Amino acid sequence: MQPAVILLSGGLDSATTLAIAREEGFAPFCLSVDYGQRHNAELKAAARVAAALGARAHRTVHIDMNQFGGSALTDPGIAVPTAGVVPGIPVTYVPARNTIMLSLALAWAEVLGSQDIYLGVNAVDYSGYPDCRPEFIRAYETLANLATKAAVEGWRLHIHAPLIEMTKAEIIGRGTELGVDFGLTVSCYQPDPEGRACGLCDACRLRRAGFETARVPDPTSYQAR
Amino acid sequence: MQPAVILLSGGLDSATTLAIAREEGFAPFCLSVDYGQRHNAELKAAARVAAALGARAHRTVHIDMNQFGGSALTDPGIAVPTAGVVPGIPVTYVPARNTIMLSLALAWAEVLGSQDIYLGVNAVDYSGYPDCRPEFIRAYETLANLATKAAVEGWRLHIHAPLIEMTKAEIIGRGTELGVDFGLTVSCYQPDPEGRACGLCDACRLRRAGFETARVPDPTSYQAR
Repeated sequence: MQPAVILLSGGLDSATTLAIAREEGFAPFCLSVDYGQRHNAELKAAARVAAALGARAHRTVHIDMNQFGGSALTDPGIAVPTAGVVPGIPVTYVPARNTIMLSLALAWAEVLGSQDIYLGVNAVDYSGYPDCRPEFIRAYETLANLATKAAVEGWRLHIHAPLIEMTKAEIIGRGTELGVDFGLTVSCYQPDPEGRACGLCDACRLRRAGFETARVPDPTSYQAR
Repeated sequence: MQPAVILLSGGLDSATTLAIAREEGFAPFCLSVDYGQRHNAELKAAARVAAALGARAHRTVHIDMNQFGGSALTDPGIAVPTAGVVPGIPVTYVPARNTIMLSLALAWAEVLGSQDIYLGVNAVDYSGYPDCRPEFIRAYETLANLATKAAVEGWRLHIHAPLIEMTKAEIIGRGTELGVDFGLTVSCYQPDPEGRACGLCDACRLRRAGFETARVPDPTSYQAR
């Protein structure tokens, strides 16, 4: 089995992506990034998901992105919107986050001798982030092949974004087929210390609507109101 | 004055790059990365250089790349070669390092509202690293403009690599013209705790030869042998 590096946030999408990578025959090496996110309950979820889905290894890299701020997820002074999903780039966008995470995955892949990186970005039921679009993924793959020994040694790196054209309901359906326990995952941007979801942020709204459309029971623990 | 983010390692090349960015009219915001490098005396040098050359701000981001290893600079079990520069990618190559550093610079640039990132890579008197070549820089600029709000809001990010076609002697000449005090900089891959250079690693050899060719007195402190 060839190794693949899977970016694992602890949410629903990356858990399904891990299950897909395993289904596609790769030995999964999971990478999570503690970037100072408000919702770091997702990091505990990532560890649970990695263990449940048979990761060969799970590493967490720490980067203090609070010193840059500029996002509701990394600056405590910017509130997470709870009024519903609106068009445009929301304040939960973290500048360059996916670029940074892919770059860390690229480093580990090169050391492991892996040619395959998976990430669970999605351009359909998503939050308007520029770094979740197919043209971003294609440009990153081009870059990866120029940035590394691949450029000199004549092999190729592949960036897999298997969810990119799927709706949230389709992702939930696929994950369910592959045996993902979504009760282990955390999507909420502002969960309480026990990892219970707010039910109001964009991530909660997209997730809840996905379970409804997929006609799959929603295993999410919501905060009492 | 528009802000620009300058990747500042503390070496000769990035110090000259900072001086060029200032000469080109930018307000310099300097970013250093503590990635667990063997030669972290360069981080103290970066702080000295930032102060001496009038940086508006200087931030250091910490990332533990020792957990990936795969390089003589991040794995204590791999020795730094001292026998001279040889063709090919040497063991001092750190997988994806420039990709990671540019991604951190991209995050800060986006938060600052800066459209300009400078880095001191060089494809002439360099060590055979794939992420120091012009095609890498061009691919990164393409990526940066897809990865960020620039993609949606209709402005452009520029990745400046002003040294990329210069010899080490030309870099030293340019830096000298701009008043860079190279005595503040550290290039050595394995300096002693006082920052004194070994004189034998590739970085030392390229640096020393550069001063000789440029006919500029070499201010480097070398370790006694």
